[in-house]
Amino acid sequence: MTEHPEVGTRVQRTSTTLADGRELIYFDDSEPYLSGAARREVVDERPLDGRPTAGTMRLDALTGDWVSIADHRQNRTFMPPAGECPLCPTGGGTMPSEIPAHEYDVVVFENRFPSFATESTATGSSDDPLLGNAPALGRCEVVCFTSDHGASFSSLSPARARTVVDVWADRTLELSALDAVEDVFIFENRGEEIGVTLHHPHGQIYAYPFVPARTAALLRQATEHHRKTGRLLGADLLAAELEAGSRVVIKGAHWTAYVPYAARWPLEVHLVPKRDVPDLVALDDDERDELAEVYLDLLHRLDRYYEGPDGAPIDLPYIAGWHQAPVRQGREVSRLHLQVMSILRAPGRLKYLAGSESGVGAWVNDVSPEAVAARLREVG
Amino acid sequence: MTEHPEVGTRVQRTSTTLADGRELIYFDDSEPYLSGAARREVVDERPLDGRPTAGTMRLDALTGDWVSIADHRQNRTFMPPAGECPLCPTGGGTMPSEIPAHEYDVVVFENRFPSFATESTATGSSDDPLLGNAPALGRCEVVCFTSDHGASFSSLSPARARTVVDVWADRTLELSALDAVEDVFIFENRGEEIGVTLHHPHGQIYAYPFVPARTAALLRQATEHHRKTGRLLGADLLAAELEAGSRVVIKGAHWTAYVPYAARWPLEVHLVPKRDVPDLVALDDDERDELAEVYLDLLHRLDRYYEGPDGAPIDLPYIAGWHQAPVRQGREVSRLHLQVMSILRAPGRLKYLAGSESGVGAWVNDVSPEAVAARLREVG
Repeated sequence: MTEHPEVGTRVQRTSTTLADGRELIYFDDSEPYLSGAARREVVDERPLDGRPTAGTMRLDALTGDWVSIADHRQNRTFMPPAGECPLCPTGGGTMPSEIPAHEYDVVVFENRFPSFATESTATGSSDDPLLGNAPALGRCEVVCFTSDHGASFSSLSPARARTVVDVWADRTLELSALDAVEDVFIFENRGEEIGVTLHHPHGQIYAYPFVPARTAALLRQATEHHRKTGRLLGADLLAAELEAGSRVVIKGAHWTAYVPYAARWPLEVHLVPKRDVPDLVALDDDERDELAEVYLDLLHRLDRYYEGPDGAPIDLPYIAGWHQAPVRQGREVSRLHLQVMSILRAPGRLKYLAGSESGVGAWVNDVSPEAVAARLREVG
Repeated sequence: MTEHPEVGTRVQRTSTTLADGRELIYFDDSEPYLSGAARREVVDERPLDGRPTAGTMRLDALTGDWVSIADHRQNRTFMPPAGECPLCPTGGGTMPSEIPAHEYDVVVFENRFPSFATESTATGSSDDPLLGNAPALGRCEVVCFTSDHGASFSSLSPARARTVVDVWADRTLELSALDAVEDVFIFENRGEEIGVTLHHPHGQIYAYPFVPARTAALLRQATEHHRKTGRLLGADLLAAELEAGSRVVIKGAHWTAYVPYAARWPLEVHLVPKRDVPDLVALDDDERDELAEVYLDLLHRLDRYYEGPDGAPIDLPYIAGWHQAPVRQGREVSRLHLQVMSILRAPGRLKYLAGSESGVGAWVNDVSPEAVAARLREVG
């Protein structure tokens, strides 16, 4: 892990260690590379417990899925009062934050309450194959997009968004190299409606020691399509959406955003590259440049989608997740894409995942995908 | 559909038709069989539109799942004011309800805003196999457990709960006989936290024209286990849980309730029969009698699980769903079980299905299944 080809020469990358041994990495994208310098002035002296270790994951024999049992996370930080944001630079508030610097551009660090960690002290096991378990090895990271507590991804400059793209690629490359890791999922949860407990603009990365259930389903379908046609499912779907046209929202030189034909969320958009690439690492400079622009454009549209009673736009609660090829399987049939989805089905009204969705996985969408796409084109 | 073996002689079963052609069935379990008589006095004269028809379902090529696109449901009844509950008997309020009777015991009727219906006017289709669609044929029903608006399933008498079990079996038998139907899912959503829009105690039934995604996963695992061992996965899991003991909550003569080893919800309990049965229809009288008692016991424990700040119990928001064998496949390896799950992970704190769960289907549970089981035994 000594070369860092993903962040180029524009970004200064500085790795350091927090008081409990967790890694923290600054990605400074502008002179005078403040945080890289500042970290030598601020030392993390918090009396933290030791480096967090992995809990256990259990195999759900009924479905074949792994479930992480992380009972240590029950006490994680929940809506801290102002001045105690753990994602703000240290020095701005009344207590030391997670980030021992007076300022930063983009910073990544290992989650203090991880669902998956690189070391395990788990000892439990079961003789019964129906009650299978394993240490929850892997890694969970937090990505702070900016030191500005009141910002959001959509308010970042294109240059900063471009830095975040490079950071995502950097993390994908490094986390994919860990022995335990089978899949790297990069995502952002935004909004209290989706359960966000920290308002500071940030995303997360989960590096799993297995291929998660939905990713496995994507892989099954992509493999079957490739076996039948010799082509990539993702590429054929993009061609079909471009041909149909009615669900396309943004069409760039390298990227297309569309509402998927069988959207299951009231508001769902896929952002897919023109070129067949398995993951973020494979994107070239031109593709990364346009991604920063197109993604910001998409987020601006999403924030204009609904209007409140006073006609003002509503900050959309959303989940945005990057579906990348698994680390060690199906890379030749998988195709990178971003899925953005929201549970807001009207101002003040949420879609709940109740009996049909949560019980048996049968989704009912009350909104026409074509109507969603038309509205997203209108607010561009 | 002229024989009704599931409800026996104790229950008087009367089918009628609402103003728009939807079927409504009274199940009267006590003298003088009020609603069966009353329906001849109250006629449903509401100026309703015609019988609701099926919308379209679309195939999500990325996952292989069917998604019902039901944009007509966007305007369904949402938290009606007092006196306008559509599930109360007509006459009690200021406007006619869905139920044209002055009183009733248990009643089932076709949902006015169905995700699946028996007739379709859908004409849309696509030439592209990647954009597959079909009419959303099937049937959606509402089951009112009592005419008492302020009651809940947990406050029903054992005799009434027993009637509901018979009604579930009746509906499973009839809906399984419909040509389009491949799977019958019986469920109850309770609590505003899970999105319930009508407080009157009721459950729902979805009769799907496909085997839903999670049900398909259960079937895959059960089939594989049967191929390897010649035994039923559900039976072996029950044996393993009884052997382990630490997650068992209630052990009856015919039914066992346990927190599953790999529980994914903060509060999740499975209620399973001792005997291998594929669905509710196959339960004998003794099993139905005990089911009514054990299920009420379980619901009472769930309502005592959490305490509010004043020490008072908290009505638990939950989803309860009956996993039955699909209608036309895998019946020999499937095993009936009830799954009860709650998103409440502490008083006033919900589990949200955010990036990991919603994006890739990887669940993280912050609560130890053994601790949940211990608490449920304690509040028995």
